[in-house]
Amino acid sequence: MRYSKALIPTVKEVPADAEIPSHQLMLRAGVMRKIASGTYAYLPLGWRVLKKVMNIVRDEMDKAGAQEILMPAVQPMELWQQTGRNVDYGLTMAHFTDRHGRENVLAPTAEEVVTFIAANEINSYKQMPVNLYQISFKFRDEFRPRFGVLRSREFIMKDAYSFHTDNDSLHETYMVMYNTYCKIFKRCGVKYVIVEAETGEMGGSGSHQFTVPCDNGEDVIVHTEDGSYAANIEKASVDALPAIARTQNHPAVEEIHTPNKKTIAEVCDFLKTQPKDMIKTLIYINHPLVDDVKEISSYQATHKDGVGKHPPMTHWGKRFAVLVRGDFEINPEKLKCAAGESIELADEAAIKALTEAEVGFAGPVELLERNQVHKIIIDHSILTIESAITGANKTDYHIKNVVPGRDFPIAGDNVIIADVRNAVEGDTYKGQKLLFKRGIEVGQVFKLGTKYSAKLNAKFLDKDSVEKPCVMGCYGIGINRIVASAIETLYDKDGIIWPINIAPFEVIIVPAGPGEEIARASEKIYDDLTAAGVEVLLDDRDARGGVKFKDADLIGIPLRITIGAKSLAENCAEVKLRRESEVNKIPMADVKEKVLRIIAKLKGECA
Amino acid sequence: MRYSKALIPTVKEVPADAEIPSHQLMLRAGVMRKIASGTYAYLPLGWRVLKKVMNIVRDEMDKAGAQEILMPAVQPMELWQQTGRNVDYGLTMAHFTDRHGRENVLAPTAEEVVTFIAANEINSYKQMPVNLYQISFKFRDEFRPRFGVLRSREFIMKDAYSFHTDNDSLHETYMVMYNTYCKIFKRCGVKYVIVEAETGEMGGSGSHQFTVPCDNGEDVIVHTEDGSYAANIEKASVDALPAIARTQNHPAVEEIHTPNKKTIAEVCDFLKTQPKDMIKTLIYINHPLVDDVKEISSYQATHKDGVGKHPPMTHWGKRFAVLVRGDFEINPEKLKCAAGESIELADEAAIKALTEAEVGFAGPVELLERNQVHKIIIDHSILTIESAITGANKTDYHIKNVVPGRDFPIAGDNVIIADVRNAVEGDTYKGQKLLFKRGIEVGQVFKLGTKYSAKLNAKFLDKDSVEKPCVMGCYGIGINRIVASAIETLYDKDGIIWPINIAPFEVIIVPAGPGEEIARASEKIYDDLTAAGVEVLLDDRDARGGVKFKDADLIGIPLRITIGAKSLAENCAEVKLRRESEVNKIPMADVKEKVLRIIAKLKGECA
Repeated sequence: MRYSKALIPTVKEVPADAEIPSHQLMLRAGVMRKIASGTYAYLPLGWRVLKKVMNIVRDEMDKAGAQEILMPAVQPMELWQQTGRNVDYGLTMAHFTDRHGRENVLAPTAEEVVTFIAANEINSYKQMPVNLYQISFKFRDEFRPRFGVLRSREFIMKDAYSFHTDNDSLHETYMVMYNTYCKIFKRCGVKYVIVEAETGEMGGSGSHQFTVPCDNGEDVIVHTEDGSYAANIEKASVDALPAIARTQNHPAVEEIHTPNKKTIAEVCDFLKTQPKDMIKTLIYINHPLVDDVKEISSYQATHKDGVGKHPPMTHWGKRFAVLVRGDFEINPEKLKCAAGESIELADEAAIKALTEAEVGFAGPVELLERNQVHKIIIDHSILTIESAITGANKTDYHIKNVVPGRDFPIAGDNVIIADVRNAVEGDTYKGQKLLFKRGIEVGQVFKLGTKYSAKLNAKFLDKDSVEKPCVMGCYGIGINRIVASAIETLYDKDGIIWPINIAPFEVIIVPAGPGEEIARASEKIYDDLTAAGVEVLLDDRDARGGVKFKDADLIGIPLRITIGAKSLAENCAEVKLRRESEVNKIPMADVKEKVLRIIAKLKGECA
Repeated sequence: MRYSKALIPTVKEVPADAEIPSHQLMLRAGVMRKIASGTYAYLPLGWRVLKKVMNIVRDEMDKAGAQEILMPAVQPMELWQQTGRNVDYGLTMAHFTDRHGRENVLAPTAEEVVTFIAANEINSYKQMPVNLYQISFKFRDEFRPRFGVLRSREFIMKDAYSFHTDNDSLHETYMVMYNTYCKIFKRCGVKYVIVEAETGEMGGSGSHQFTVPCDNGEDVIVHTEDGSYAANIEKASVDALPAIARTQNHPAVEEIHTPNKKTIAEVCDFLKTQPKDMIKTLIYINHPLVDDVKEISSYQATHKDGVGKHPPMTHWGKRFAVLVRGDFEINPEKLKCAAGESIELADEAAIKALTEAEVGFAGPVELLERNQVHKIIIDHSILTIESAITGANKTDYHIKNVVPGRDFPIAGDNVIIADVRNAVEGDTYKGQKLLFKRGIEVGQVFKLGTKYSAKLNAKFLDKDSVEKPCVMGCYGIGINRIVASAIETLYDKDGIIWPINIAPFEVIIVPAGPGEEIARASEKIYDDLTAAGVEVLLDDRDARGGVKFKDADLIGIPLRITIGAKSLAENCAEVKLRRESEVNKIPMADVKEKVLRIIAKLKGECA
């Protein structure tokens, strides 16, 4: 391809709203452009990269015996109501009423539809195992889209779904997919780790996550020093801290005036105390009821001021107070497990209504007794506290000398004691110290079991003539995230450094300088390499060499061939790897062979 | 691929709700499955066909110098408001409010987004011409999805958009695309015709439509006997019928009781008259106002009884009565041109409110005078009528002796006389008789001009340093429709007959009978052909030969190789083309060569 004909709008300046290198570089290199919040268009370079990733994924999935299909992106709400996942996804799931009054979902994933297909088409054990996949458009109405394509609203996902007669067969395919994923990420040139993962909205009995470690990843992975245990932060178990033996001789609860001190840090600073001596109280509510989707939409439409993101109180369902020691953070996945249902942090209006105070002054005392919440969920860490400071449920006031078990219940029907906090530095698991790393989740595999097949009636007649629900697995890869994680893994101050197999072009030829001779020599190499099957970008623009070099570095083509007056006088070209600084002068006659050898070597590293 | 591992759920029975052969066969052959109204999942066979079509399209687009990109499917409503096309598309455009209160559109097409990109990235004449395309998910909330993928809600479209400095450059690319389309359809194996087309919602100055003639197509194309003129029915011009000279001596208008006679046919039958002596009166309203999208959504959500599809009367905007002679049909595209704005047939509630009568009794008399409509649009055919029967605007009544010009105006500020009817048999154009054919529209090319660039501010600095709006073209192909039209063009009572280049497999091997020897011989041919790059489906199922033959015919693989005991005894295989009845006995040693030769010949026919 000729650069002069291509739409590669590179930009010098770092875009203001791009926080991390992959996001910045994808914009600067003309890989993509923002169309709206969390919404991007892929320009020619970006789409070439995405296509290469998709082709690798497709090739390996086909080799693994999976069959490609295409399911609709706009799906009937009814199917989602049958599994209840419209509730689990909550506001993240975009939906609309069509002209015939039917409710449609923009698919965030496709378990429901694929199980619906299986329910109709798979009737006998003879038809299994079968593994169906698609590479397609998905949509999630993220609360806060950010980091470019790492958390965008629209994205391309490879999602595969396997159907089995039993768990053994599931495990077999699960391991085939596990190994296929290793091959895929290797070929894409990203370095990954595999950790145990929480199943989240997916449900099921087991899961592994493929994560590319990098400083700017949104995910945190946790592992023991010896590597015998590795999990993502959502999943990572911790040993419970030792609970204290309680004594009864604490002074009574006392109110303290803490004007406008809302956060743990502000209160600690004001009262000269430490986070570990405080109880953090958070209010959660469960999701709107299934049948109220319409009412909620109309409510949301009329409350766009940012206050009322939740439906009116009559729709709240159950309310929870969640307690954790001031120096820890709630883990939403663990919390969901503990609550036994999908719950969401309450918004400002709801917190005010329940605590009768501004946000920042919630506390556990009397919340349950006054029926403001249905349940209290208490993290193990609370049991390490003798006496603590917490919110007074009164604006600008906290209370001290709050003793767990004396001033609020730590046992009873409406109290749940559980591990609901994130692991932190210093935690152990099975006695071993836990270490932490940030990373980007690029893939996840799940053993789903019969969660979907049971609800959507995907049954088959087994060998023994008994009707059973299909056992399912599912396997996802974020196509766009592979692209971003490749950049986050390897870039420098000058730009992207693409892995060879997903680079938009393998080689860029830079005619550095004017004149017929340089142009002719460049064209010759371009023709030779193109004929040999190499993907070449010829920078035939009427621009200075410096501009061309800068762009070549920015767009990150693995191999650069420079044709300049000086080296051409010696009948040579200059060959340089993007990732190395060394420049090699190669006789023109040898350029093709040399380049093919380098490409083969680079590809060999990813095989 | 092995049939025993593949999900190819063939069905004997013709599905009840599938009206036309392509729809029936795509379901019966396990090519796709219905998920909801107008919504299909493509199973492995179907997706293989779609991928092949997409690859042909991609290959030819790339050869034509177009650059592939990917634009978002969920687009900001604001962009559509800037061009006003949210109004043009009306209820066909699905949209939803996201969690942050922003309005999003499910893209039916992408002129707005691509022009937004061009506005930001194309600044100079040096960057043009440029032709950007994508092959992607589109959605249209069709009023009546039908005929399988011919009118589905979700579909895959190849849409290309070119940007130019002037009309000459546009014309050049337009012709490149025109010729590229010819190559694409030829390679896909569909026989097409090219006709002049109406630009519809697209706007612009010129358009050609690529149509595959077949009995079940939704489109009608019209041409003169000598072929000098060909257009689709939306576009086809007709010579105006001779208007009569009016005399004044007609009897006065008289009411007739026509209980429950609503249609032209019913009234004619009841009153023993002819359609050509009647005036058909239709009520149209223009689309809801742009800013009221939210209110309309909420109105629609609360009026799901099917009565109130339109927003409340206060939102209707302008109302039109449209008159055409009883033996003609309104042409919506011509009507839109005549009205000068986008208008839609009113629904039952609106008609009742305006005519004060049940549907079926509307008439032109006094409608304008009583301010029930803002304008009357009169087709030329009305001017051929001396005196006619028409609705009385009173339930169960018509009126006779209605004289155009005496009983309702045929001139004046609020009267538009125009050609707003479809061409019919017997019509002429420039004196030549018009002939009719049905067909499926598979592609269309448009000269858009500056409609979008002007509204979305896509300007460039020309050679003369003057800022000008880019001149645009756009070029669409319905990927799914190519598949359906290939079937409609060629099938028989036994099933599909795929053209070689888009067939899911080129060859099917049928081991007909039990035994090691047949299996071994089949596997050998399977391996040989696969190694030679042929796409082979091996029917290794434990089933009778008859079942396998039936499925092979149904799924339409172009070439069948049968290995049976009898021919194997002679060391032969039987080779048969799906489209021919002849069976050729070929010595085993020659099978590979023979098959490769046949495939090359079949491909040659589509090159």
